[in-house]
Amino acid sequence: MKMSIDQQQQDYTIIEGGITSAKGYHASGLYCGIKKKRLDLAWCYSDVPATAAGVYTTNQFQAAPLVVTKESISTSHTLQSILINSGVANACTGKQGLEDAYQMRQLLAKRFALPENYVAITSTGVIGSLLPMDKISNGIAQIQDWDSVNEPHLFEQAIMTTDLFPKRAAVQLEIDGHLITIGGAAKGSGMIHPNMATMLGFVTTDAAVNPIALEQGLRQVTNQTFNMITVDGDTSTNDMVLVLANGKAGNAVLTKEHPGWRKFLAGLSYVCQQLAKHIARDGEGATKLIEVDVSRAKTDQMAQIVGKSIIMSSLVKTAIFGTDPNWGRIVCAIGYSGQSINPNTVKVCLGPIVVFENGIPTDFDQAEAVKYLEQETIQIKVDLGLGQGRAVAWGCDLTYDYVKINAAYRT
Amino acid sequence: MKMSIDQQQQDYTIIEGGITSAKGYHASGLYCGIKKKRLDLAWCYSDVPATAAGVYTTNQFQAAPLVVTKESISTSHTLQSILINSGVANACTGKQGLEDAYQMRQLLAKRFALPENYVAITSTGVIGSLLPMDKISNGIAQIQDWDSVNEPHLFEQAIMTTDLFPKRAAVQLEIDGHLITIGGAAKGSGMIHPNMATMLGFVTTDAAVNPIALEQGLRQVTNQTFNMITVDGDTSTNDMVLVLANGKAGNAVLTKEHPGWRKFLAGLSYVCQQLAKHIARDGEGATKLIEVDVSRAKTDQMAQIVGKSIIMSSLVKTAIFGTDPNWGRIVCAIGYSGQSINPNTVKVCLGPIVVFENGIPTDFDQAEAVKYLEQETIQIKVDLGLGQGRAVAWGCDLTYDYVKINAAYRT
Repeated sequence: MKMSIDQQQQDYTIIEGGITSAKGYHASGLYCGIKKKRLDLAWCYSDVPATAAGVYTTNQFQAAPLVVTKESISTSHTLQSILINSGVANACTGKQGLEDAYQMRQLLAKRFALPENYVAITSTGVIGSLLPMDKISNGIAQIQDWDSVNEPHLFEQAIMTTDLFPKRAAVQLEIDGHLITIGGAAKGSGMIHPNMATMLGFVTTDAAVNPIALEQGLRQVTNQTFNMITVDGDTSTNDMVLVLANGKAGNAVLTKEHPGWRKFLAGLSYVCQQLAKHIARDGEGATKLIEVDVSRAKTDQMAQIVGKSIIMSSLVKTAIFGTDPNWGRIVCAIGYSGQSINPNTVKVCLGPIVVFENGIPTDFDQAEAVKYLEQETIQIKVDLGLGQGRAVAWGCDLTYDYVKINAAYRT
Repeated sequence: MKMSIDQQQQDYTIIEGGITSAKGYHASGLYCGIKKKRLDLAWCYSDVPATAAGVYTTNQFQAAPLVVTKESISTSHTLQSILINSGVANACTGKQGLEDAYQMRQLLAKRFALPENYVAITSTGVIGSLLPMDKISNGIAQIQDWDSVNEPHLFEQAIMTTDLFPKRAAVQLEIDGHLITIGGAAKGSGMIHPNMATMLGFVTTDAAVNPIALEQGLRQVTNQTFNMITVDGDTSTNDMVLVLANGKAGNAVLTKEHPGWRKFLAGLSYVCQQLAKHIARDGEGATKLIEVDVSRAKTDQMAQIVGKSIIMSSLVKTAIFGTDPNWGRIVCAIGYSGQSINPNTVKVCLGPIVVFENGIPTDFDQAEAVKYLEQETIQIKVDLGLGQGRAVAWGCDLTYDYVKINAAYRT
C-alpha cells in the first residue's frame, strides 16, 4: 500500500478540478462579517446523503466543532453538507462554545432541510473567542440555490486564513466501467491569528463506498499524506479531514475486497497528497517545498519517524533557506530520531547529489549542491540500508518571515 | 528527589567558582591553531585518580571521542584528566576519526604520565572533518605545570564555540564535618559551525563518592537539568557530561544510603542546573531565557514531556520574542504533547498573571502581560491539576538572529 509514494502508477487521470468535480456536489463561499473584508463562510452540499468518514486532531484541546462533527458522523456514517467558518476557531471556548457549535449545525440543517446529523461543521481562526452567532446565522440565511450552485473557488477562498493561495486537487479513474471522480480542497498551515496552524481537508467523490472501508482508507491515506507534513511541528486544536462518497457514479459499493479498491485508494491518496504538499509549500514565510524521501528503513513506520525528524529540524530548515548543503544537520536529525539505525549504511542525497555514504561525507561539489538548493522544490533522499520500509514527508524552509509573522503578530 | 526544582533548600552555599574550586583540581586552556584566533584546547587534571561517571548523547551518530571516553570510564570508573578541543568535532569521521581519538588520549596520557584509561577526551566543532593531529600534538606539548596551574577561565574559554559567554557554577556543603566543594564548567548550545549544538558539561568535586552512586546520581541530575534544556530540539553527536570525584575532602565514601547523599545530590543538581540555564540563555540568537514550570502532573515524567513540548514549540518561542502573551500557543503545545491531560483542569500563568483556567482564557490585562514579557527571564507556569508530578524545562526565544546565524553561515 505505497500508492502515496509512487505517483507513476497510471491508476488515475489528474484533472483540473476540486471539491465540486465529482457528480452531485455543490459548494460556494460568502462573506458574513467575521473577518474584516474577506470571505469567511463556506458550504458544501451533496444532492443525496453521502457515506462519510473523518479524521481529527490528536490535540487534547479539541475544539467544539470537532466534537459536534464527530457526533454527526458517528451517528450514521452519513453526511450531506459541510459548513465552515474562518476567522474564529471556536476552540478553548468552554460550554458556550459547544452550544454555539450545536446551534451552527442546527441552523444549516434547517436551512438545507436536513437531519442535524447529516451536517458537519468546522471553524478555523482565532482561538479563545466565541463565535459571532448572529453573523453566522445571517450568513447561513444568505445561502441560495445550494442544490445548483457550483463555485468551488469561493469555497476555497472562504476557508482560507493566512493561506497565500487556495488549494485544490482532483483525479478521475474507472472502476467496473464507471467513471469515478475524486476532488478536494484544503486550507493550510499558515499559523493562524493568534495561535496555530489549522489544517482542514475536504474530499468529495461520487464513488459508492462502504463506510468502514472509507474510514479505514481515509485513515491510511491521511497517515501517508496530511500526517506527513510539518510546518513547525505544532498540531492544532481544529485539524480535520473529511471525505464524502455519494455513490452518484453508479459503481457497485467499494469494499477493501473489491478489485477496484486499490485503484480508488490510489486516487484518494493522490488528491490528499497534492493538498498536503500545497499546505506545506504555503507554510508561513516559506520560500521552498522540502520533500524528504526515506527508503530502505526496517519498516514504513521507521521511515516515517526518520522523515519527520528531518523535516522538523529547525537547523535543516534554516540551512535550506540559506541554500547551505549542510549534510551534517540531516545526518544529525537521523541520529536523534530515536530509531535504531546503522550509521555505516546511511546514504544521504540532496536531489541527485550523494553527500554522505558509509558513515562519512562524500567529496561532493559544494557549488553544484548550492545550485541545487536554489530550486523551489528540494528533495532530500535518505537510504537507511536496512530493509524495505519507505515514507515521504513534506515541509518547508524556516525563514526570517516565519519569525516575523509569528513574533510580530500582535505588535 | 526534586532538589533540582526547589532551590530554596539551604543544603549548600553558592560560591563564585568553577571547575578548579574543589580541592586538588587544576585546569587551563591554550591556543593550538585549530581555530583562527581563539583558545581551542582545554585540559583538567586531578592530583589523584578520581571516581568518574559520564552521560552521553543518545544520537546514533556518536562521535569518535565519546567512544574512547566511554571506554576509559568503563574500564575502572576512574579518571584523572580531561582533554577537550574545540573547532573540530571529530564526528562522522569513520575509522580515521576513531584512530585520531585514541591517539589524542594517548598523547595526553603520555604527557601527564597517566594510564590511558585515566584520560577522557572530547571534541566540539565542525563535523565531518578530521582532527589536525599535528596541532593537537603540539598543543599538548605546550601544557606546563599541570599539577599547579589554576586557570579555570582559560578552560572555560577554550571549550567555547559559538558561545557568547563562559559558563561556570560552584557550591559548597558540609557532610560529616567535611567541607565539600562541587564546581563545573559547560559549553553550549549555540549551534556550531556548521552543524549543531554540542553541549558539554564538566563537574569536579573533592567529595569521595561510590562509583555506582555517582553514576546513578549524575544520570538522575542530568535528566532534571541538562536534559530539560532545549534550544531547537536538535541533539548533537558529541553531547557529554562528565563528573569527577577525587575524595580530597576527606569524607567517608558517599553512597545512596549515606545520610549526606541527598545533600550532595542537591549541590550537584544546583551546579548542573545553573550550567544548563546558562546554556539555554546563550542559545543562538536568543534574547530571553524561558523557564517552563509544570506542576500537578500525574507523574514527574508527564510533567517533563509537557514542559518540553512547550519549550520546543516554535510558536511559543517566537511569541515570547515578540512579547506576545499568546496563551493559545502554550495551551496548544500542552494539548499535542501526547499526554492524557484534562483541558478543564489546566491553568496557565505568565509569571504572576493567570491567562488560562478551567478550559477557557481569563480576562487578563493584555498590557500588563506584554510588560511582563519584556523581561529577560520569562516564567511559564502550567498547573495540570492531576497529581503530584513536577518538572522544570528551560529554553530560549526564537529570533531573526537564529535564522540568520543558521541560514547564512556558509554564505
